[in-house]
Amino acid sequence: MPEVAAYAIDSPTGRYARTTITRREPGPTEVFFDIAYAGICHSDIHTARGEWGPVNYPLVPGHEIAGVVAKIGSEVTKFKVGDRVGVGCFVDSCGECDMCRQGEEQFCTSRPGTVWTYASTGRDGLPTAGGYSQGITVEQDYLMRVPDSMPLEEAAPLMCAGITTYNPLKRWGAGPGKRVGIVGMGGLGHMGVQFAAAMGAETIVLGRTLSKREDGLRLGATDYVSTQDAAAMKSLRGSFDLILSTISDGIELDSVIKLLKAHGVLVNVGLPEHPSTFKLGELTGQARVLAGSNIGGIGETQEMLDFCAEKGISPIIEIIPAPQINEAYDNVVASKVRYRYVIDASTISE
Amino acid sequence: MPEVAAYAIDSPTGRYARTTITRREPGPTEVFFDIAYAGICHSDIHTARGEWGPVNYPLVPGHEIAGVVAKIGSEVTKFKVGDRVGVGCFVDSCGECDMCRQGEEQFCTSRPGTVWTYASTGRDGLPTAGGYSQGITVEQDYLMRVPDSMPLEEAAPLMCAGITTYNPLKRWGAGPGKRVGIVGMGGLGHMGVQFAAAMGAETIVLGRTLSKREDGLRLGATDYVSTQDAAAMKSLRGSFDLILSTISDGIELDSVIKLLKAHGVLVNVGLPEHPSTFKLGELTGQARVLAGSNIGGIGETQEMLDFCAEKGISPIIEIIPAPQINEAYDNVVASKVRYRYVIDASTISE
Repeated sequence: MPEVAAYAIDSPTGRYARTTITRREPGPTEVFFDIAYAGICHSDIHTARGEWGPVNYPLVPGHEIAGVVAKIGSEVTKFKVGDRVGVGCFVDSCGECDMCRQGEEQFCTSRPGTVWTYASTGRDGLPTAGGYSQGITVEQDYLMRVPDSMPLEEAAPLMCAGITTYNPLKRWGAGPGKRVGIVGMGGLGHMGVQFAAAMGAETIVLGRTLSKREDGLRLGATDYVSTQDAAAMKSLRGSFDLILSTISDGIELDSVIKLLKAHGVLVNVGLPEHPSTFKLGELTGQARVLAGSNIGGIGETQEMLDFCAEKGISPIIEIIPAPQINEAYDNVVASKVRYRYVIDASTISE
Repeated sequence: MPEVAAYAIDSPTGRYARTTITRREPGPTEVFFDIAYAGICHSDIHTARGEWGPVNYPLVPGHEIAGVVAKIGSEVTKFKVGDRVGVGCFVDSCGECDMCRQGEEQFCTSRPGTVWTYASTGRDGLPTAGGYSQGITVEQDYLMRVPDSMPLEEAAPLMCAGITTYNPLKRWGAGPGKRVGIVGMGGLGHMGVQFAAAMGAETIVLGRTLSKREDGLRLGATDYVSTQDAAAMKSLRGSFDLILSTISDGIELDSVIKLLKAHGVLVNVGLPEHPSTFKLGELTGQARVLAGSNIGGIGETQEMLDFCAEKGISPIIEIIPAPQINEAYDNVVASKVRYRYVIDASTISE
C-alpha cells in the first residue's frame, strides 16, 4: 500500500500540518498517480472550516488535482504509466443509474451515490482524501487526460473551477448573439469570462468593485460593471440572455434577475450559508429562470479540457509551497488571490 | 362607436356595478365581437383590489373572453362575421421586436410594449377595458379561433388559465417518462393536471389538503398528495422531473424544490405579494431550476385551444350572472370555486 506525504487539518479552527496517509494499492481497473499540483478551491475552505456542516478530521482536501500516472492495475486500458492525468471533485459513482449513464456522475442516484474526492467514503469503506498529497489511487473511468499542450499546474484548477463554469455556460446557451454576464471575478469568475468569450458571447463582468477590471477586459470581457453602480445596473436591465453567478454569498438576487431579458437565465454555482430572499414575481412576469449548477460529468470535464487547449484558455495561478496553505486560505477569503492558488505537491514532503 | 354594457369597479374596496362603456369602431384590420362569456381569473381580483399596485378606476377586468364576431374592418382577412373567437390577456403589441417575431408577444420589448386587455392603454391612447362587458374591439392578429367542438363558455377560461399552464408544461418537457407535479388544484391547477396527463406524463397533484382528490384523479392524476403530509412529501423527494406551481402565495419553496430530481424544474406562475425566502443551495447542489412563466403568445394559445379540442380537455366551470361577481370574488379568494367562474355576458345588460 503506497504511503504518501500530505497536508491535513484536524479541526474547523485548526492549521494545516504535514502528515502521511495510505493510499489503496491500485485494483485491476485503477490507476495510482503522482500528484504534481493541487488547486485550492473555496470549497476546500468551507469544508475544512465546517461551514457546510460537520466533517471528519483529519481532513486532506483538494479536488483540483493533476499529475503523472505511476502505476496501473492489470486491466487498465485507458492510461499507461507516464500519462498526464487529472481528477476533479469526485472519484467514483455507481456507473449504472440514469444519471451516471447520461454522463452526469456527480448526480449519481444510487446509494451511497457519488464518492467525493475528499470528505466522503470510498469503495474500500475508508474516508477519501484529496489532492493536498503526493499521490492518489483512482478508478480509471474517473480520470481526465491532460492535453499535451497544457502545463499540469494550469490543468489542476480546471478540474473544478473550469468545469463548474464551462458546464452552465454551455448548457444554457452562451454563444454568438448572446449577452452573458459573469457575477464575481475570482477563481471561478475569471474562468467564466474566458469561456463565455471563447464561446462567442458578448461578455460583461459584474464585479462588486472595478479593481479587477483590466484583467476582466484582457480575458475577453467587453465591459466590466460594478454592481454597486446603480445607474450602470439600471441601464443594463432586461439586456442579458444569461448570467452566471460565481459568488457564494451576498448576491442580490432581485437586482441581478432584473438584468435578464424575458426567458433569460441566472445560473448560480455558489452555495450560500444563509437563505436567500427575493421576489419570485421577477421570475414569473418575464418567464425568467434561476438555475443551479454543480460541476459536470467526466466526459464533459474532458471536453472542457480539450476546449481550453484548443482555445488557449488557462487559469491565472499563483503557485505556492504547501506550508503556505494556511495563509493562502486567508487570502482567498479576503479575495486577495489572483486568481487561483496551486500547491506545488513536491513541497509537501520537504 | 359601439356602446356596450359592462360591469365596473370604482375603487380597491368597491363593488361591481353595471355601467356602459364605449368601444372603438373597428379599424381596417380590427374585429368587433359580441362577448358571450368571460372567465373570472384570480388576477382580476388582485388587480381590482390594488394588490399588484395602483390602477385607474373605473376598472372593467376580464381577460378570458369568448364570443362571436359581429363586425370586421375592411382589411380583415382572418375572421368573418359569425366566427367564434377568443381574447386572452393582451390585445396588442408592436409586432416587430424580437419577442413579437418569436411569437412571444406577451414580452414585447418596444415602448409601450404589450397592451394588456384591461388596466393598460390601447393604441387609441384610451384605457383598455376587459371582458366583463358585452363587446370588444380587437386587432385581428390578437384573436384566437375557438374550435368548432368547443362551447364558448368552456373556451373562455382557456384564454388565460389554459395557456398559463399549457405553456410551461410544454416548454419544460412534460411528456412520456416524466413525473410531473401540479401544486395547487384551483382554476389553473385543474387545467395543469389535464394538460400534463394528456401530454403523457405521470401526473401527481400536490394540494394543501386532499379535499379535491377525487377531482384530481378523475382529471388524470395518478396520485394526489397533501403538502402538509410530511411523510408523503419525504417519500417523494428527488422524484419529479417537473413541478408546476399554480398558487400565488404560500408556496414553501424549499420543500417543493427538494422533490425535484437533479436538473428538475419548478415552474412558478403565481405572483406572490411578498418576497420569498429559500435556500439557493437546494438549486445549486442538484442543478435544479426555478423558472417563472407568464401566459403564452397568440400562436401558442391557438395551439393550446386545438390541443384541448383534440384531447377533449375542458375547464370545469360554474356559470354565473354578472350581479354575482362580487360574491364570486369572495369565493375565489376562499378557494370555494369548482374551478372557474364564467360570467354569462347576456346577464350584464339585464
